[in-house]
Amino acid sequence: MLLLNSSDFTQGKMDQSMSCDADMVKPLPKDLSHHYSDVTLARKPNSLKLLYRFFTIPGIGNLAGGLPNAQFFPFDTLEAQSARPQRWTPTPNRPGGDDALSSAMASVKVPSDGSKTAFHVVVPHDADTPDLTQKIDLATALQYGQASGYPPLVSYIRQFTRECLHPNVPYRGGAEVALTVGSTDGFSKVLDVFTNIWVEEKNDIRERPALLVDIFTYPSAMNQALPRGVQICPVEMDDDGMAPYGPGGLEDVLANWDDAKGKRPHLLYTVSMGHNPTSAVLSLERRKDLYEICSKYDVIIVEDDPYWYLQFPSAEIEEAKSRNMPLPMFKAANTLPKKSGYPFLDSLVPSFLNIDVDGRVVRLDTFSKTVAPGCRLGWVTATPEICLRIIRVSETGTSQPSGFVQAMIAENIMGPQPEAVAAFMSRSRKDQATFAGWKTEGWVRWLAGLRGEYERRMNEMCNLLEENAYQLKQSTPVRDADSDWGVITKTKLYDFKWPRGGMFLWVKVHFEKHPLFGATGTEGNIINGPALSKALMVFLTHKPHLVLASPGMMFSASPEIAARQGWSFFRLCFAAETDEMNRDCSVRFGHGVQKFWRVKEIEELEALLEEAGTFEAEEAEVLTSMGC
Amino acid sequence: MLLLNSSDFTQGKMDQSMSCDADMVKPLPKDLSHHYSDVTLARKPNSLKLLYRFFTIPGIGNLAGGLPNAQFFPFDTLEAQSARPQRWTPTPNRPGGDDALSSAMASVKVPSDGSKTAFHVVVPHDADTPDLTQKIDLATALQYGQASGYPPLVSYIRQFTRECLHPNVPYRGGAEVALTVGSTDGFSKVLDVFTNIWVEEKNDIRERPALLVDIFTYPSAMNQALPRGVQICPVEMDDDGMAPYGPGGLEDVLANWDDAKGKRPHLLYTVSMGHNPTSAVLSLERRKDLYEICSKYDVIIVEDDPYWYLQFPSAEIEEAKSRNMPLPMFKAANTLPKKSGYPFLDSLVPSFLNIDVDGRVVRLDTFSKTVAPGCRLGWVTATPEICLRIIRVSETGTSQPSGFVQAMIAENIMGPQPEAVAAFMSRSRKDQATFAGWKTEGWVRWLAGLRGEYERRMNEMCNLLEENAYQLKQSTPVRDADSDWGVITKTKLYDFKWPRGGMFLWVKVHFEKHPLFGATGTEGNIINGPALSKALMVFLTHKPHLVLASPGMMFSASPEIAARQGWSFFRLCFAAETDEMNRDCSVRFGHGVQKFWRVKEIEELEALLEEAGTFEAEEAEVLTSMGC
Repeated sequence: MLLLNSSDFTQGKMDQSMSCDADMVKPLPKDLSHHYSDVTLARKPNSLKLLYRFFTIPGIGNLAGGLPNAQFFPFDTLEAQSARPQRWTPTPNRPGGDDALSSAMASVKVPSDGSKTAFHVVVPHDADTPDLTQKIDLATALQYGQASGYPPLVSYIRQFTRECLHPNVPYRGGAEVALTVGSTDGFSKVLDVFTNIWVEEKNDIRERPALLVDIFTYPSAMNQALPRGVQICPVEMDDDGMAPYGPGGLEDVLANWDDAKGKRPHLLYTVSMGHNPTSAVLSLERRKDLYEICSKYDVIIVEDDPYWYLQFPSAEIEEAKSRNMPLPMFKAANTLPKKSGYPFLDSLVPSFLNIDVDGRVVRLDTFSKTVAPGCRLGWVTATPEICLRIIRVSETGTSQPSGFVQAMIAENIMGPQPEAVAAFMSRSRKDQATFAGWKTEGWVRWLAGLRGEYERRMNEMCNLLEENAYQLKQSTPVRDADSDWGVITKTKLYDFKWPRGGMFLWVKVHFEKHPLFGATGTEGNIINGPALSKALMVFLTHKPHLVLASPGMMFSASPEIAARQGWSFFRLCFAAETDEMNRDCSVRFGHGVQKFWRVKEIEELEALLEEAGTFEAEEAEVLTSMGC
Repeated sequence: MLLLNSSDFTQGKMDQSMSCDADMVKPLPKDLSHHYSDVTLARKPNSLKLLYRFFTIPGIGNLAGGLPNAQFFPFDTLEAQSARPQRWTPTPNRPGGDDALSSAMASVKVPSDGSKTAFHVVVPHDADTPDLTQKIDLATALQYGQASGYPPLVSYIRQFTRECLHPNVPYRGGAEVALTVGSTDGFSKVLDVFTNIWVEEKNDIRERPALLVDIFTYPSAMNQALPRGVQICPVEMDDDGMAPYGPGGLEDVLANWDDAKGKRPHLLYTVSMGHNPTSAVLSLERRKDLYEICSKYDVIIVEDDPYWYLQFPSAEIEEAKSRNMPLPMFKAANTLPKKSGYPFLDSLVPSFLNIDVDGRVVRLDTFSKTVAPGCRLGWVTATPEICLRIIRVSETGTSQPSGFVQAMIAENIMGPQPEAVAAFMSRSRKDQATFAGWKTEGWVRWLAGLRGEYERRMNEMCNLLEENAYQLKQSTPVRDADSDWGVITKTKLYDFKWPRGGMFLWVKVHFEKHPLFGATGTEGNIINGPALSKALMVFLTHKPHLVLASPGMMFSASPEIAARQGWSFFRLCFAAETDEMNRDCSVRFGHGVQKFWRVKEIEELEALLEEAGTFEAEEAEVLTSMGC
């Protein structure tokens, strides 16, 4: 594993009080190897590593490796036009507060001219520096490398992770990182390390592994676990995320576990910052409660946080304003002692890693939402021992992530290489020396800018949805009453919490108030919530609404939850569409629901259900595959 | 799965006689699903796919997906300076023949000036074409996509594979492709699809899966299979690759299988073109024999061929010349009816796919040796059904390969996009319109150029090794003899076949002729071949030799083979080092062996063995993990 001294990390602003001595009094992480899968225990180091110690003999001619010659790579450079970090406008870390950015900026976007906010990045074929953590060139980035990752990039990520993201890791030596090809790959490797495959016809039920998830969860995670025979164990959640206590909460599930149903779960999966699909952000207090339970029952916490930097401090205030509620007091999300020194980062709720005394937290990070999904680049943060096990999985599978993306991102953040400037100078003097590399300051500024963009979109969507949340209805005037005018009734059609983070809005539709709820269909069936929900989804895709919303059924952790609650929810993403479409669709969704409440003929509803039929059949196939 | 019509493939030169009618009379591939693993059978399509049918409604506002906005990707372009396909000089397809390239070129390299042989490649942020198979831009390449791969690249690879590489696939509809993040990933996915995990303490021995490999094989493949409990079953090989018949040959192993040792193998792994480590190229005739046996015993053939285009027709002739043997007759490697129309491709020995009547061949390809290992990009070619199973593994793991490399390679081969030219024009008029894209013609020319470079290196190394293969020794003059001069004896120290393909030279060292072979060590032990082999490896890393060679032990498919034969071999790579080092090291290796033969003191040998000690201990750990 690559080890660096902290002087390599010139942008670090970490509190210097954590000296080596202070680290030595910290406890070591616990030995959690009893959770390893059979395959993990059987994995050995790569046999080619036997020769590594000879590679460093000065002047050695290495005929042992099986490498092609870097001279024959067709690319002489890799280059890009890349955004300056200032391209997008941030929102305040403390809305209404006195930080540098005024509260008004929460809703005002400074228009930017892309062409003026770009610079040219060049990765040269060869960089001369002998320091592998600074050497960004194609001869190394496009050659075979170790599964731990490209040294310049992995050294940067490691220090950013240790010093900026999680400066409070409580165990001795701190956390390590292992690169992945994105967080889907990361979770796949975590499952490989921590679960055995279980087959109903072949294995004892008491050996069946189990995965704790929120009752509404990211379906891909379930799709990864289910073919391995892993049992999905839903844990109740409220508006603030997974519930530690109460009926169906984490403690309840673990304390009352029935061994006849499978092994008590030792793995928990959650999206803890901008939860997918519910948008909840787990507070530090909630984290402490959940962690205590996991520690008591020896559960490993897998924290999958692609949206971590998308926390929206304005949501609570804007929600209150729009609903004429009293404005809430500002509460700092991070009250832990050590800070990164970057106000944006320090304003965010901290990861479980920062309270991980035992070393039982495995965090998944990705560049998918901070740069682009097409990177297929991410990393796991955990104890050095767990990271080593993840890297062994990479050695026999993905190897390291693509050198194309590793080199481009390393150069973009850490650049420029003197060789890159020289290579580019010879072609285009105009742009030479315009690129100084983002450095950590620029990287953090980029993230803050993206947060600003997505926070404004979130606020826009919520404001527009609020406008159509109620059905106003004038009852028919009653003769002989005091007035000719009927009473205006106000029916709440849907409800939502303004997202505190992430990319999604989780809308609960009150189908029980729909005129056809409980009506009798043409075949004598009773129209229920699930039927109305399916009908609405299809109805919304019709003109003039033309909006596709994700049905809550898809995120339900079991068929029971889908049947009990899932049908009443829709997930709306405020990230993917253009600004204009985002606004239009927010209005179209609201109008669509209003219009759906005017569907009063059973035949019209049944036509929609018929159209939904195909969808339902496909859905059944997915749901039955859950089998829990 | 992406389906294309052949008009998309403008460079195709395929024999047009394969009409649809001709395809319809071909047999369908066999159903091989009885070989699928439990996990493979349990995998379902991604649940998010349920919504795909709504995505295409015109004007639909998609709030259902969970995508970030492409506007917020920091990269406005991706660019590169890339080689023109003509940069490297090919060697003749038929040495001594009358093809366009003269035989003399087999050993003459035309020096090239890199700067004059480069052009500028630009991938724009947005390309306007609605044809997804032609749309190469960052808005799509860096966005989430389907695990089957980036449409422009996968459509290109698919047609190149079907029409140029394997035009003779005998089953109806032909082969499909599934992208991987390189062939290590490819084989990992193949193991996932075709083997259950087996644990000695838990599972019945009769359920143990097995993998047929050559007695000398690529160690990473074994490292991938072993932790899953897969039994490694070595098959004898000769100079021409895996042996179909004879003791220990494929038929023998399968016909005399003992079920008490595990399940009869249904999976075979081999590097069939430029075998790693032995450099053998399986002839079409040998392939037919092996295939017949696999068909009889229902074995799936995994053909891992990173070196496929590195076949060296000059090796046989140059070998004969250097040894004063009669020159061999030229024999065409590919006598199958359908051709690609590209003489270089048609001169190569064809893949097993071209005789795969049953659909039991799974071929692994990679860009690691044709572009660069850092691509982490490759593909599986197999029946559509098997490819679908591979793609399902990708869906819950790697997803698709990195968009950075997919876009760059697509643009480099298929480009340019009009939008790319426009974007680049605005910055650097000088280089505008210099890039026309390699197209298939350029891609094939690039491969032929690389083959030329590596073939020349191979010939150089072999020639230099020949010079030191013999020890010439003048015996002490014997008094009273007819002459004052002793007899000159010629001892062959090492032997090798000139590589017919790949990147490796497989040298057999005749340790049994070493002066200390059979001598008694200081602790009464007898000095044997394995001891001399270890000592030589270490000796060669000392000054002035300074050469590192891979010991044959590392490639031995079992501890028995390592003990019986492995120690007598070394693998030398003629690809990785510079031209100059390649020559120097070839001489240094020869001189080193010569010098090693002059080690006559047991103490000197034992000092080398002591130095090898650490290595041996590490090796033991790897070998015991094989446990078969």
